[in-house]
Amino acid sequence: MNNTIYVINPNSLAHVTRGLQESLAPLQRDHGPVIECLTLHDGPAGIQNEQDVAESAVLVGRLVGDLALERGDGAAAFVIACFSDPGLHLARERTVRPVLGINECGLLTALALGRRVGVIAILPTLMGRHARGYAAAGIASRIAGEYPLDLTVAQLQDADVTRERMQAVGRRLVQDDGADVLVLGCAGMSHYRAWLEASLGVPVVDPTLAAVAMALGRVAG
Amino acid sequence: MNNTIYVINPNSLAHVTRGLQESLAPLQRDHGPVIECLTLHDGPAGIQNEQDVAESAVLVGRLVGDLALERGDGAAAFVIACFSDPGLHLARERTVRPVLGINECGLLTALALGRRVGVIAILPTLMGRHARGYAAAGIASRIAGEYPLDLTVAQLQDADVTRERMQAVGRRLVQDDGADVLVLGCAGMSHYRAWLEASLGVPVVDPTLAAVAMALGRVAG
Amino acid sequence: MNNTIYVINPNSLAHVTRGLQESLAPLQRDHGPVIECLTLHDGPAGIQNEQDVAESAVLVGRLVGDLALERGDGAAAFVIACFSDPGLHLARERTVRPVLGINECGLLTALALGRRVGVIAILPTLMGRHARGYAAAGIASRIAGEYPLDLTVAQLQDADVTRERMQAVGRRLVQDDGADVLVLGCAGMSHYRAWLEASLGVPVVDPTLAAVAMALGRVAG
Amino acid sequence: MNNTIYVINPNSLAHVTRGLQESLAPLQRDHGPVIECLTLHDGPAGIQNEQDVAESAVLVGRLVGDLALERGDGAAAFVIACFSDPGLHLARERTVRPVLGINECGLLTALALGRRVGVIAILPTLMGRHARGYAAAGIASRIAGEYPLDLTVAQLQDADVTRERMQAVGRRLVQDDGADVLVLGCAGMSHYRAWLEASLGVPVVDPTLAAVAMALGRVAG
Amino acid sequence: MNNTIYVINPNSLAHVTRGLQESLAPLQRDHGPVIECLTLHDGPAGIQNEQDVAESAVLVGRLVGDLALERGDGAAAFVIACFSDPGLHLARERTVRPVLGINECGLLTALALGRRVGVIAILPTLMGRHARGYAAAGIASRIAGEYPLDLTVAQLQDADVTRERMQAVGRRLVQDDGADVLVLGCAGMSHYRAWLEASLGVPVVDPTLAAVAMALGRVAG
Amino acid sequence: MNNTIYVINPNSLAHVTRGLQESLAPLQRDHGPVIECLTLHDGPAGIQNEQDVAESAVLVGRLVGDLALERGDGAAAFVIACFSDPGLHLARERTVRPVLGINECGLLTALALGRRVGVIAILPTLMGRHARGYAAAGIASRIAGEYPLDLTVAQLQDADVTRERMQAVGRRLVQDDGADVLVLGCAGMSHYRAWLEASLGVPVVDPTLAAVAMALGRVAG
Repeated sequence: MNNTIYVINPNSLAHVTRGLQESLAPLQRDHGPVIECLTLHDGPAGIQNEQDVAESAVLVGRLVGDLALERGDGAAAFVIACFSDPGLHLARERTVRPVLGINECGLLTALALGRRVGVIAILPTLMGRHARGYAAAGIASRIAGEYPLDLTVAQLQDADVTRERMQAVGRRLVQDDGADVLVLGCAGMSHYRAWLEASLGVPVVDPTLAAVAMALGRVAG
Repeated sequence: MNNTIYVINPNSLAHVTRGLQESLAPLQRDHGPVIECLTLHDGPAGIQNEQDVAESAVLVGRLVGDLALERGDGAAAFVIACFSDPGLHLARERTVRPVLGINECGLLTALALGRRVGVIAILPTLMGRHARGYAAAGIASRIAGEYPLDLTVAQLQDADVTRERMQAVGRRLVQDDGADVLVLGCAGMSHYRAWLEASLGVPVVDPTLAAVAMALGRVAG
Repeated sequence: MNNTIYVINPNSLAHVTRGLQESLAPLQRDHGPVIECLTLHDGPAGIQNEQDVAESAVLVGRLVGDLALERGDGAAAFVIACFSDPGLHLARERTVRPVLGINECGLLTALALGRRVGVIAILPTLMGRHARGYAAAGIASRIAGEYPLDLTVAQLQDADVTRERMQAVGRRLVQDDGADVLVLGCAGMSHYRAWLEASLGVPVVDPTLAAVAMALGRVAG
Repeated sequence: MNNTIYVINPNSLAHVTRGLQESLAPLQRDHGPVIECLTLHDGPAGIQNEQDVAESAVLVGRLVGDLALERGDGAAAFVIACFSDPGLHLARERTVRPVLGINECGLLTALALGRRVGVIAILPTLMGRHARGYAAAGIASRIAGEYPLDLTVAQLQDADVTRERMQAVGRRLVQDDGADVLVLGCAGMSHYRAWLEASLGVPVVDPTLAAVAMALGRVAG
Repeated sequence: MNNTIYVINPNSLAHVTRGLQESLAPLQRDHGPVIECLTLHDGPAGIQNEQDVAESAVLVGRLVGDLALERGDGAAAFVIACFSDPGLHLARERTVRPVLGINECGLLTALALGRRVGVIAILPTLMGRHARGYAAAGIASRIAGEYPLDLTVAQLQDADVTRERMQAVGRRLVQDDGADVLVLGCAGMSHYRAWLEASLGVPVVDPTLAAVAMALGRVAG
Repeated sequence: MNNTIYVINPNSLAHVTRGLQESLAPLQRDHGPVIECLTLHDGPAGIQNEQDVAESAVLVGRLVGDLALERGDGAAAFVIACFSDPGLHLARERTVRPVLGINECGLLTALALGRRVGVIAILPTLMGRHARGYAAAGIASRIAGEYPLDLTVAQLQDADVTRERMQAVGRRLVQDDGADVLVLGCAGMSHYRAWLEASLGVPVVDPTLAAVAMALGRVAG
């Protein structure tokens, strides 16, 4: 098979895309579909409010449409690697192949690992959007809580600050709200996953990994 | 890595286990965790009612406990390959590693692929259990319907009868109930997946594949 | 008061905007806020799929932001006059004044008039979006059903065909699904409201009228 | 049009009725339907428990029936101006014209303005009734919380005490429970609305205004 | 013990009260609390619409209040024997002893006997009220359906007609809607219970019996 | 009638069975069905985790099957007297007579006595199972909270410690979580019921008593 699973980073930050590609390496099989991460070069420099979501949505839709046309069956699946799932339903209009959003896949995977899911957001600005999404998905009764780190995508690079905040938010979700599984609420948090899981003692889901794993299952079937 | 993802067939039918092993081959990576399917030799010859579920649950719990003890970290994850998820919560008491049920994982994966999920059961006897499970998981609002093939596990071997029934049940779910994604309600239906998907034009989820893909994502993280 | 309630028609069809202005005339008070309908000249020529929604969303957000800046407190409220509520949450980022979507307001008003709400859509393409919206709003348990007329926005001009379809869909909702109140699922159906209500004997809600009435209550307070 | 929207104050306090009439003045149009507030002279002196609700319900039903008979089409709509919606369903048996309850309309309007609704009750005695109502309406998932001022209808006249309590309860709803919109849980709190909104920085809904605005939209259609 | 469980028939029909007393005889213990059925002599002659409910509610409240005062601890519990539970919450204001409604108790008992509950109403007029009640109780997801016999309380005396209608409605609930337990939607249907259960092969709950059994458990504790 | 209601204590502790028999004495009628409590001699010595539940489930199923066969119609009903309802659905496969679980019946009875139910568990180990059960039953919206005493079944014998813990947990449920009715989360807590109810001033439900009362109503019909 030389099929490709396209993982679209819907912001313009190439280093985020590289981070995704690295974190997904363990899922790459020798003879399986290629996992290829793409940067949305015209996208916003981080998706931090509804404006960013709306702008990237249009671009994500266009990119998926173009790839579907160009690659045909070679475009095995698409993953939108932003926790706001920008353009998810629009992209589904443009291809018959599976289009997965990391918010949806991260949450759904968490539901298989625990009873009550806690979400670590980066900023409060899109938490309302997330909440509407959980309700739209019919899974709101399983959400224990969601709190922001109050860091920008750029600030996630500062490991000391990020770890301290992640631990504080994670503890609150586990101890006060009864979460027994956590989801990282941003594609750019992947490299903190294993550390946080070890630190808190509950499963921590990287939503991009979760989405790509689902895509692999789908493509393998 | 020489970790193992154990896929437990909780009935005593070795040919079902072999079928699972084959259908999971596309997910086996060269240097990734080994996917190993096991037969529950003392289990019932098919899980077709609550009695079978209860009996296999105790045995599944024991097997998971034994493997966890014996293999330690080498036992990377466990998948219970029966659509009634027998012993799921019991097994979770016996190991800190992820234990996934194919009913839960099949349904959750379907929620990432469509809006309304239809389920093709083999027999009506355990549909009440399934319904309680969907409600317990908080996802009942997404279930379009579930109908049985009215075939035993053994009768699934007869491809002509099975295909005819599958198509009839699948059409009813899609056309009358508005399902836009289907889940195969038995680990023994895997080899009909691709055919049914092509036949009906909506995604069809093999729950075992879905669960093992989730396990791979979990182990890779 | 010379405040303005801006009613934004998020497509480029000026005749639709004129129709809105006429249908809202009964709500215009002599000394109350001005109700002013605007056309989104760069918008799509009808909002009939997710692509149209995404494109108009960005433009709606920009227009609301511009008006909020330009008019200050004079921009008393904004109504997005499309049943897909394009740009609703984005627009709310751009102003502290109320932004109302006609889908939300139409449905919520219907909940005050009956127990079970039936929705008459124009096309099936955006019914999935509507369904997600009802669930996101937490009101899905009150929806009796939704069916499309299978007409384009343009075809709504043909009164004979439209009435025939409306009556058929309305009857199905009332008689088969137990709806006791209906909502018109498009801003361009206003002039059929009174006729349909008389024809079917249940309240029929024009969502634009409902939203503007809510805006008036909000501005009056 | 010389149609009338009847706003029924279901208690016997004429000064409450006068307050309603004043607070609704901004919604009165020159040539629109007359908004007329009526006192239920035989009603209880405030509706503060289930006994009061039950007694006024019978009287509200009778009054609506009499007005419907007497005025015919001239009785354009009825609004029951008490947050317990006494006699709402009974009154609907007595007329084909819309009958709106301010609890329902206040809450539904709030759902168009924010994600999570906080309610400021006057007394705890009827909060159980309110909770049943929210659940019956299928909107309970959107309620952030409800707390009482612990003041009687009479004590609402004391502006200093009322403002202090309102601010405390409002802050608790916004800061602790995450409410982003509030509803005044009594028809007699109207004149505190604008002040409380300015004080807390979130929209505050006067349910009587909300209901009459909905009635205007209904009558205008 | 000479405590009394008061079963209040909230209509004025003494023969209905006698029927209740007879049907409850199997629950009367020699040395247990006395089960005493009372007629609401000033009540309506059957509770067939919201007007009847409202009028009997006030009277039920008064009677419970009087008995609670007069009998003190001797009034062990109260059961309101009408499927609209008139005055239930009002009566609870008048006594610290348990007050049970047969609608609530009938439904809750059915939930212990089956998965999906079908309800046989007498008339359609109060089915809206029932539906609001199921939602208010948070159990709506377990209701398979409810249909009326379209008979008045008086017509229930005609056994031939009643049986024919009951069987038709019961079959529809079981076969079309998947009900596996039924509830009789009127206190006056008790004597058809055993026959209907035998005829349809699913449990049929007499709500008055269910409520009195709950009261006995409560009093015994 | 010499029918029997079998109350199965699914653990091996005979003194628990004796306690059940005593606490149920007030429900025994002179000429009514015999209430007979049985010990599951091969069962675990207390049901404190999923392993215990699974093992006793198989045995409960077998015992119910044997009694149903042996006693025929004389086995009027079965009550499984453990708050985890082990073997409930399995036992229902083995008899056409009613099989009631005390968890379900305790909770459903509480719903007839209050609005928000608090549960006092013995240990945290099975609270996840309980939570899944409330959701499966569709009643999760009515649960105020559940906390453990952190005592083993054996330690419940120590009245001083138990009372102190019960009061602390009960107060938390009532005061912090707004519970207005409590359920004892273990068959072995019966003798603390009346004391706790007097101590806290809200109804406290003994689930075994609740289930047997329901069974009596069922058998009497």
